[in-house]
Amino acid sequence: MNPVKVGLLGLGTVGGGTLNVLTRNADEIARRAGRGIQITHAAAKQYDPSQLIGLESVEVTDDAFSVVENPELEIIIELIGGYTPARELVLKAIENGKHVVTANKALIAMHGNEIFEAAQQKGVMVAFEAAVAGGIPIIKAVREGLAANHIEWIAGIINGTGNFILSEMRDKGREFADVLKEAQALGYAEADPTFDVEGIDAAHKLTILGSIAFGIPLQFEKTYTEGITKIEPQDVEYADQFGYRIKHLGITRKTETGIEMRVHPTMIPRRRLIANVDGVMNAVLVKGDAVGPTLYYGAGAGSKPTASAVVADVVDVVRMLTTDPENRVPHLAFQPGKLVDLAILPIEEVETTFYLRMQVIDRPGVVAKIASILAESHISIEAIQQKEPNEGDNTVPLVMLTQKVIEKQLNKAIAEIEQLETVFGQVMRIRVERLDG
Amino acid sequence: MNPVKVGLLGLGTVGGGTLNVLTRNADEIARRAGRGIQITHAAAKQYDPSQLIGLESVEVTDDAFSVVENPELEIIIELIGGYTPARELVLKAIENGKHVVTANKALIAMHGNEIFEAAQQKGVMVAFEAAVAGGIPIIKAVREGLAANHIEWIAGIINGTGNFILSEMRDKGREFADVLKEAQALGYAEADPTFDVEGIDAAHKLTILGSIAFGIPLQFEKTYTEGITKIEPQDVEYADQFGYRIKHLGITRKTETGIEMRVHPTMIPRRRLIANVDGVMNAVLVKGDAVGPTLYYGAGAGSKPTASAVVADVVDVVRMLTTDPENRVPHLAFQPGKLVDLAILPIEEVETTFYLRMQVIDRPGVVAKIASILAESHISIEAIQQKEPNEGDNTVPLVMLTQKVIEKQLNKAIAEIEQLETVFGQVMRIRVERLDG
Repeated sequence: MNPVKVGLLGLGTVGGGTLNVLTRNADEIARRAGRGIQITHAAAKQYDPSQLIGLESVEVTDDAFSVVENPELEIIIELIGGYTPARELVLKAIENGKHVVTANKALIAMHGNEIFEAAQQKGVMVAFEAAVAGGIPIIKAVREGLAANHIEWIAGIINGTGNFILSEMRDKGREFADVLKEAQALGYAEADPTFDVEGIDAAHKLTILGSIAFGIPLQFEKTYTEGITKIEPQDVEYADQFGYRIKHLGITRKTETGIEMRVHPTMIPRRRLIANVDGVMNAVLVKGDAVGPTLYYGAGAGSKPTASAVVADVVDVVRMLTTDPENRVPHLAFQPGKLVDLAILPIEEVETTFYLRMQVIDRPGVVAKIASILAESHISIEAIQQKEPNEGDNTVPLVMLTQKVIEKQLNKAIAEIEQLETVFGQVMRIRVERLDG
Repeated sequence: MNPVKVGLLGLGTVGGGTLNVLTRNADEIARRAGRGIQITHAAAKQYDPSQLIGLESVEVTDDAFSVVENPELEIIIELIGGYTPARELVLKAIENGKHVVTANKALIAMHGNEIFEAAQQKGVMVAFEAAVAGGIPIIKAVREGLAANHIEWIAGIINGTGNFILSEMRDKGREFADVLKEAQALGYAEADPTFDVEGIDAAHKLTILGSIAFGIPLQFEKTYTEGITKIEPQDVEYADQFGYRIKHLGITRKTETGIEMRVHPTMIPRRRLIANVDGVMNAVLVKGDAVGPTLYYGAGAGSKPTASAVVADVVDVVRMLTTDPENRVPHLAFQPGKLVDLAILPIEEVETTFYLRMQVIDRPGVVAKIASILAESHISIEAIQQKEPNEGDNTVPLVMLTQKVIEKQLNKAIAEIEQLETVFGQVMRIRVERLDG
């Protein structure tokens, strides 16, 4: 089957990331989607070819309207941002019978009702997972994964810039203005940071979350918006003394009198998982009546994370175009004919780091002997600690962390150590994962 | 349109929860799905009618095969568990052209390849979101939300019983056997806890996660499984001294030599979000090459949380049966004609608790005056603290937490407080949310 041809509007941070992800993961994505996906046309006023992979097969123009008019294209990805001309381009693409994927939260929050109506009339999809919380599939979670629930409330850290600033203020006792400057230098905040620090960006996203939670029309103008510019270091400190942290939250809740829609600095108990989401990361906490609280965490912005959500939406469209509705999502994510029989490693072949605990005689030379057995097996020790002696005998627990080692190699060394007269019983071993790779 | 008729196999914990959620949230679910969903037939050997809502419109039989043979039913929900007769029932339902929703991790991990092939041949859906991590929509996240990514690894706390035991061991320094007994008394662990504490249940789930992450056939027998029964309180303590926590993780990773599939106790850095997932809660950390790390957290078991996932799958099937593929998931989660125009509350009408900070003269009677203004406005104070005096003047910061109050009521009181000669500048206010309601 020929690849689905896609037009891309915008080759900036997210547009470039989308082209790169689609190019780099092309095979794997096609195995999932059931068909190749090819960006053949793109529109951009200016772009940096050195940052783009796969640009050679893309025809680039500075006329975005020529892309949405191109009859070859089945899907348009809108990554220009802002209201105009994004609205006109999206409506024109829909009018031309094209499916639309967008990351444009401002556009959806402000003109979503109009755009969705046009799409329904025309029978095309408009997908916008990337508009809220970047790479976190929160739209899918709420619209589909939690469809059984009466949603009670949603509270989200949905602006990474604001969260970075508040995290730094807390960690280092710094002033707002000072951290903002650093965020700008690091590229986390725009030269004009108003949208982020005054909560407007978060309010766009919250407007969307509130609508999909409660089934109400999008009403950005009714969302209360308050920024973080007035938070003082002393507030951060006093909050901590009360057992709280200050986060810039978007909150929507259904009450007996109406729907709350509000973005503002919020003190939350620091023992909550969401209170520990720091730096530029996003997280959304959703309370459903059946499921209880669920949390979704990940990168809320950035080139590749946002591209992840954009391309997931494109895959959704392509699966719809390509497969029967019953087989829309393959059981094992990849199309049935496209599974691969990769070897599954026996545990002996797995490489990891280890915690080891053994009970040894408290006597000079014992530790040296154990260390030398490990060294002979080419096992490096990262940390070693002799603990307090056991009462009533002359043995002590010896614990250590190794560096990475293939398990069968460790097993051999441990067998040798367990043979020593100075070591009692078996060596306890627990695998260690840093979960940062 | 007539409701979709559904047959339910099993009226135990999850089966009962499914009936209850479908009954209680019937209207809201129909507004999302585009059509009513009615359980008309159920099979159960024994059940407790006092725990079931909506049972009056269900025909209950003890012959499960009669349900899967019933030509009226379009969807079968299998919640019996185990291999037999679940496998035979599911295959028969597929043969009869019915869509199947199951929460049966053992069945999918062991017989999924066979079941999926039968479903593809017959053109029916087999959905199993509830099989992994209960109410957390992790299957949907990996199969759809992260479809753009090359998945690098997944690490999950996917057995609540084991996590409860390890959390208690850490918090209270207790022994494994001791906590296990409590977990059994609380109903978190079965009388025979083997499946949970030896990691077999987690291995079933990990097998499924590995397959959807990497596109490999299900191979439960190759998943390495090690339980938590040998963990000693001293290991928990020593891990903490190294900056780690011990969690029972399911880990699958793609390496150059093959796929790792392993369930075992694992030491992870305690600053990771997933290290702070305690009690019976589940969480799955997924690392994609584009999106980076994402985490999904929620209840991994229990009647209503598991029902949440089962019913979400049923909604998926019904949306497929009922709407055009382009309109499968409504833009705002609810069908276009089924949005409601609920009032959005102005911020002045929102009720919440507040942190207040004000700069006051350090003199007897000042605090009493402020407290009396709040009392007259019927605002209760939960905590109040006078901080260290500022250097160089005779003022001190006064901070407090209020109890719940309607915002406009608070505003009035604050305006009065700001008029006092003993209070300098404006009163800082930050809303407080406990996020536990």
